[in-house]
Formats: sequence, structure tokens, C-alpha cells
Amino acid sequence: MPLSHRITHLNGGGSDGWDLFNKARAMLARGIDVTELTIGEHDIRTDPSILEAMHRSAMGGHTGYASVPGVRQLRETVAARVQARTGVQTGVDNVIITPGGQAGLFAAHAAVCDEGDAALFIDPYYATYPGTLRAVGAVPRAVQARAENAFQPLAADVDAAATGAASLLVNSPNNPTGVVYGEDTLNGIAGVCQAHDLWLISDEVYETQVWEGTHVSPRALPGMADRTLVIGSMSKSHAMTGSRIGWIVGPREAIAHLVDLATNTTYGVPGYIQDAALFALNEGAPLEDRVAEPFRRRRALAQRILAGQNTVRLVPAQGAMYLMLDVRATGMSGEGFAEALLDTHHIAVMPGESFGAAAAGHVRVAMTIEDDAFAAALATLCDFAAERCRKAG
Amino acid sequence: MPLSHRITHLNGGGSDGWDLFNKARAMLARGIDVTELTIGEHDIRTDPSILEAMHRSAMGGHTGYASVPGVRQLRETVAARVQARTGVQTGVDNVIITPGGQAGLFAAHAAVCDEGDAALFIDPYYATYPGTLRAVGAVPRAVQARAENAFQPLAADVDAAATGAASLLVNSPNNPTGVVYGEDTLNGIAGVCQAHDLWLISDEVYETQVWEGTHVSPRALPGMADRTLVIGSMSKSHAMTGSRIGWIVGPREAIAHLVDLATNTTYGVPGYIQDAALFALNEGAPLEDRVAEPFRRRRALAQRILAGQNTVRLVPAQGAMYLMLDVRATGMSGEGFAEALLDTHHIAVMPGESFGAAAAGHVRVAMTIEDDAFAAALATLCDFAAERCRKAG
Repeated sequence: MPLSHRITHLNGGGSDGWDLFNKARAMLARGIDVTELTIGEHDIRTDPSILEAMHRSAMGGHTGYASVPGVRQLRETVAARVQARTGVQTGVDNVIITPGGQAGLFAAHAAVCDEGDAALFIDPYYATYPGTLRAVGAVPRAVQARAENAFQPLAADVDAAATGAASLLVNSPNNPTGVVYGEDTLNGIAGVCQAHDLWLISDEVYETQVWEGTHVSPRALPGMADRTLVIGSMSKSHAMTGSRIGWIVGPREAIAHLVDLATNTTYGVPGYIQDAALFALNEGAPLEDRVAEPFRRRRALAQRILAGQNTVRLVPAQGAMYLMLDVRATGMSGEGFAEALLDTHHIAVMPGESFGAAAAGHVRVAMTIEDDAFAAALATLCDFAAERCRKAG
Repeated sequence: MPLSHRITHLNGGGSDGWDLFNKARAMLARGIDVTELTIGEHDIRTDPSILEAMHRSAMGGHTGYASVPGVRQLRETVAARVQARTGVQTGVDNVIITPGGQAGLFAAHAAVCDEGDAALFIDPYYATYPGTLRAVGAVPRAVQARAENAFQPLAADVDAAATGAASLLVNSPNNPTGVVYGEDTLNGIAGVCQAHDLWLISDEVYETQVWEGTHVSPRALPGMADRTLVIGSMSKSHAMTGSRIGWIVGPREAIAHLVDLATNTTYGVPGYIQDAALFALNEGAPLEDRVAEPFRRRRALAQRILAGQNTVRLVPAQGAMYLMLDVRATGMSGEGFAEALLDTHHIAVMPGESFGAAAAGHVRVAMTIEDDAFAAALATLCDFAAERCRKAG
């Protein structure tokens, strides 16, 4: 029986770029001791205090259908948080709670793209981006953020791709590059969105992980609040990846229609998870800092280790839980480097090519294992690169 | 800024049919003591033993990203359950866990309908059906199941509507009618699906609530396993409405693509909720019977009360947690009847028209309050109908 064109073409027909990840997992399953620096999963679990809050809510009876737009108090809290951080007036009607950031990305694109519309995104990109755009029937169109510009996308490049597009998806702090978009970058992007009447979908799920510079939400730029949908999530900020809870912040009319969409696609988010998220947000900065701290620490470690060599170049590590390393001096592709490193030293990092053509010759390192093991793996990676460089030279 | 045509037209441009429900909720908010017989929410909460199992899982560390297709043990358990109930060979690869039955309905249609395809559904229908079809870009096409046929859809009516359609959505035991599809009905539907090469999407979320006759899953009919996607859920069977967990069972290839879709739309279901569902399913029939028992009891109560009058006619109440009452003898529409009953007696029931044209002149009564109050409300409804009938006569 034929399936829909949409679902059979979600992956764009090619590899999904996760061959290396799957190979590492298969090696682990065979009992090989692989050091995994692949995915964005904290090495800590969700804080027990959050899980106790969830249990109190569930045992207290919050187990029936929750309000589809989200529990009012959580929406209020998200609105107040966003307003405090950005200065943009934000009320309950500007917020819908979603079952995770990915569901938010999908819904936001469904709200602004019709079948056949072009939807822009920046390469390198988080793995699901093109598939998410295809899932709503849009045609993904990549704009390269180039290594030589430290992976800051240029307004001129976005502008050149914008004709006929309905939306632009950006992500800062960025996965996979670890770059935080500067003011120039964001002003340029805002200008293109206004010139071409694009919706801006701003994935800000790493907003609490900024090591250098300042995170600016583009919704706060002049003229942008009416054309921006911001994706937020508790996954990275509160180590609640598995709880699947996030939100979309945007104009009231868009949010009202997104509630209709949620009624027909998800029917809301478990009430006890929303209560857990409310508890976690009310814990404020100390909890967020505690979750972010290991990555800040490991980034500093990495900077020291990388300063002691000159084969591997670190892309400015300004935010998020990843390092992007330029390994082109070895003469190898990111894929070749990652594969050889896995085979010879049982260290798994993601090839840059898994995240798009713009990250070719790079590898992404997730800072998600404890400090000593992380430092040792990174030192090994550098030695391996130096050795390959000598052989190539 | 323009939103997508898809999201702005989800409701088909008309009222969503929930005016009466909203009016009842507004009366309650003003402090009026309204007896609510409107929505399909149990009057019990999720069993504490299930919530304790969830808490054990969460505190045990199952808080990171869960496998997108679902936790293997849960998929195995669902597969074994379906195989035991239907006799159809069902393995892990035939099952994907979804964040609720609604998400399953949406994903199943996304898997088989492309933009512009006609998608059939039976009227009367659960409120979200047309919006769910529109959400995937399909064009909803209703087939009436007529009151004079006790709301069993006729193969000839489905056949007449099937040209150019990609799918047919059925629901037995049925919400809103309380009817369980008979063998003739299902064989007829299976024949039409094969003749017109339709996918059958079978919403079986009320499968544990059968009071009369037998629930047959159409996936078990000859030649149907390869073209049927079954939607299951823990909501009604285990009073886990708010936990948003369900599944789709279908052919391997369809499930594999549905995993791709889930990666780009939901990124899976919380692991601790999956563990809670696994615990609940392993409790077996005693727990399911305990959850279904109040509806079985109240249905018997209703049959006794309705036998004592001859104004209101009960549609065969064979399954699910609702009664469909024919109030045409009063000369009123379902909407007029429900509105007047709410105004004069503060009893809220759903107008049949909220569920489609085929249920005009009917009201749906949810059996979701404790027995004495339920019996009293139903007796009042009958007295009210008799009085209106006398006035009309």
C-alpha cells in the first residue's frame, strides 16, 4: 500500500548522517568501551526535586486532560520569564506549551508554511531541521554559515536565498557549532526578514548556556515581535530532555491558531509534567546555573588543552554544550576523521558533515561526560590529529 | 503576517460545536452548580499504583531521551496484547508509541494522505476528526451513519464516497454514539477499502468498554492487516487521559516511516510515562475491568430509567462511556434541547449536532459522574423531554 509522499521523503532520500553514531552504539552493544561524545544529553539526570514536584502533582490528581494551550500558571511564568529576559511585552496569550522543543519546531513551521513553500534554515544545522520542514510539506532551502565567518550567517547570503520563502529558521546559541549569533548577525537577519516578509522561527533552547558574549532573542529587535516565533524548552536548561516539554512564544493570533493545531495533533501536555516544569522554573537561576556549570567547566578545560597544540582549531565556543573542531589540517574529512578516531581510539564524535555541507572538515564534540574522561578524550583526539597531520604533511 | 492556509482553516470556518460545553464551563466559573455530562473524562483519577510506578522509573533515572519508536519492552507488550486479542501476528516492528491517541490519529493520516487527498470519516464523529484530516492537508469527506441504521455505517454509503480517497477513518466502539460495529458493518467496510485501495485507520481507544456484542478489530479481517493502522491509547482503558500515551499498530514499512515522522514532530514519549503504561498493561484485566465497571453499571442504570418512559429513545448502548439519546419526539434539535436543559435544569449534555449532521436531534450523555447524581440527572432529562413533548404535541 502506498504511503504519503511526505512521509516517505522526510529524510530527503540520503543517509540521515547518523551512521557514525549508530556504529558507536553498535560497538557499545558488543561490549567495546566507547567514549561517547555524540549527543546532547546531560551526564546528570533530572533533579530529584523536580521529579518529586511531578509526583506530588500526579498524586494530587492532576492526571486528567490538561488545558490544551497549557496550564495557565505555567504559561504566565513562561511569559514573565521571556518578558524579563527580552524586554518584549509577553502575556499568557503569547505562549503555548508544547510536548518538547521538537514539537514546537514542527508546529511553528506548520503555522507559517503551506505545502510547497520554501523554508530557509542555516547550515550547519541540528539534525531534524530539514525533516521538520518536509514534515509540514515545505521545501527546505539551506543557507550556508561559513567556517571562515566563524559560522555567523551573513545577511547577504540569507537575502540571496529568500525569494519565495515563507520562513527562516535560526538557532543561537547554535547546535552544532557552539557559536552565539552577534548583534550584527541578528540585525542583518532581521533586515532580510522584513525586506522579504519572512517569518523568523528562532530556536533558543540553549539560551541558558552562554559562555561568551550575550544571547539576544531576535524577537526583541525592532519590528520583529510580530513576525517571530520563539521555540523554548526545558530539555537543555533544566536537564529535562526526556520529559518532552517546551513552548512557542509569538503573536497572539499565531498562538491562537497553534492551539487549534495542538487540539488536532497532540491534545496538550501532561499536567503533572507542566507542574514539574513550573516548579523547575520557579527554582530560578541557581538550578539553571547548576545544570549549565559542567559545560562551562569543560569548555574551559578544552580551551586549555587545545591551546597546547596547533593542529585542531576550535571554532569560537561561545555557547551550548558542544565544541566544533576544525580538523582540516589533517587533510581528512570530518567523516573520515570521526571514523578513524572511533576505530583506533574508541572515541565517538560527530562528523561535521552530519550537520550539513558547511561543517565539512569539522567534528562536533559533545561535552557530556565527566571532566577527567572528557579531558583525556580530547587530548587523545588532539594527539591523533597531530599524528595524522604529520603523516599527511 | 500571514499564517498558513492549513492552520487558519483547521476548523473548517464554522463553529467548533463546543458552544454548549463552553457555556456550561462559564456557568460553573460563575458558581452555578452545573451537572456536567459532557466530556469523556473518568470521574476516577489515574490509579496511584500506576503513578508510583512512574515515580520509581523517574527517580531510577529514566529521565533522558527515550527511544523515539518507544521503549522496547512497552512495544513488545503492546504487540503481544494486540496479537492475543486479534490473532493477527504482531511484533515490535508493527508498533510505535505515540504521545496519546490524538497524536496517533494525526500521524497515521500524515503517513497515508498527501496534500489535497480526500480522507473519509464517519459522521457522527469525535470532535477532532475533521481538523485532524485538515492538519495533514487532506480534504475531509464525511459519510453519514444514519440514525435509522442505529448509526452502523453502510458499505454502500462508504463506497459512494470513496472515489479518489486515500483513507477511511472508523471508530468502534464509537464516540459519540456508543455503538459497536457489527461483523456485517466491518466486512462491508473492509470490502470497500479493498475495492478502492483505501487505507483503513481504525480508532480503537474504547476497545475495553464493550457492554454488548464483541469488539472486532478490522485489522484482523482477511486482507486488511496490510492496509490498516490501528490507533490505541491508555486514556480510556486505564484512566490515563492526561498522560498522553498511545500507539499505532500497522505494517512494518508504515511504522518505520512513522518513526521518521515522530523524530521530526515529537521526538518520542517520556520514558517514565512509558514505564507507567507498561506497569498498567501488566496489571492485566482486573485493572481494566475496574476502570470500565462504573460505565457498565451506569449504562444498566440508564437502561432501567429510560425503560420507564417513551419520549427519549436510547441508541443501542453497546460500548464506550456515552449514551446517545434520540430526543426528536420533543420536536427540538439536539442543540435546542441541550441549551434548554442547561438553562432550566443546569444539566449539561452535548448536542448531537456537535458531532455532525447525522446526529441531529440527538444528545450525547457522558456517564462520567457518580451513580446517584447520574441517575437523578437522567431522570430529570427524561421528565424535561416528556414535558417538552407534551407542549409540542
